[in-house]
Amino acid sequence: MLASRLFVAASALALSALAFAHGKEDDAIDYRMGLMTVIGWNFGPLGSMVKGKTPFDTADFAKHADRVAYLSDQILEGFPKGSDKGHTDAKPDIWANWDDFQSKAKDLNTQAKLLADIAKANDETKDKEQFKKVAEACKACHDKYKKKD
Amino acid sequence: MLASRLFVAASALALSALAFAHGKEDDAIDYRMGLMTVIGWNFGPLGSMVKGKTPFDTADFAKHADRVAYLSDQILEGFPKGSDKGHTDAKPDIWANWDDFQSKAKDLNTQAKLLADIAKANDETKDKEQFKKVAEACKACHDKYKKKD
Repeated sequence: MLASRLFVAASALALSALAFAHGKEDDAIDYRMGLMTVIGWNFGPLGSMVKGKTPFDTADFAKHADRVAYLSDQILEGFPKGSDKGHTDAKPDIWANWDDFQSKAKDLNTQAKLLADIAKANDETKDKEQFKKVAEACKACHDKYKKKD
Repeated sequence: MLASRLFVAASALALSALAFAHGKEDDAIDYRMGLMTVIGWNFGPLGSMVKGKTPFDTADFAKHADRVAYLSDQILEGFPKGSDKGHTDAKPDIWANWDDFQSKAKDLNTQAKLLADIAKANDETKDKEQFKKVAEACKACHDKYKKKD
């Protein structure tokens, strides 16, 4: 009986530890990883069209550009204080240099919104020019704040 | 030398297998899981406000409702044929009953768009009524097509 009770108590403790282990910060990590995956899913076709790997379809380009603009506005909320621990590629430097990180994330959103606006005009040359600025904004942040694979 | 060459060859083969293992279908699985996480991140605060766990903030409600509407329009592309294998909670029934699955996913988007529209009027009672329809649309699909935990 005692052994059984101890087992129950230990199991409850383990479950509590698990619940504690997956707290708000882990939700934020899951969220930002999911968000980056969804942004990547939409950024990929833009890159393929710009590089000529797939035929340039201005309507499709505009659709994906709009999504990257919409989604990149939701990045910062995925990086609350305390979410530097756990299964994450985010460097602690993010929180040590929050103003710079915030500025880089906002720059991505600004460039992505510009791309979404430009894309409405169905001008392939201008689309390609602005796409590069979006890609540079992604890279500027990843180079400084994302752990290397 | 031979052992070393064999090791290199075996490693190359392993890497190819890995690359093959993570194909387009796995990208789709990653995408739809990420998308569901991002939808959940935004659906959560709506539910909390409706249940009174957090104070009802009509502006915040409208923001999250808009996101759920925008994102739920991107669900179907995450379920291409062949993506029933691998690390997924999606039941194969989805592809066996594609028209029904498609109809349920579209219904969620319709209800979520209605919620986003209603939320602009800042009427807490109407927000709560329509939220329930969105929640029911999520549940209708999960009950039938998502593996149980």
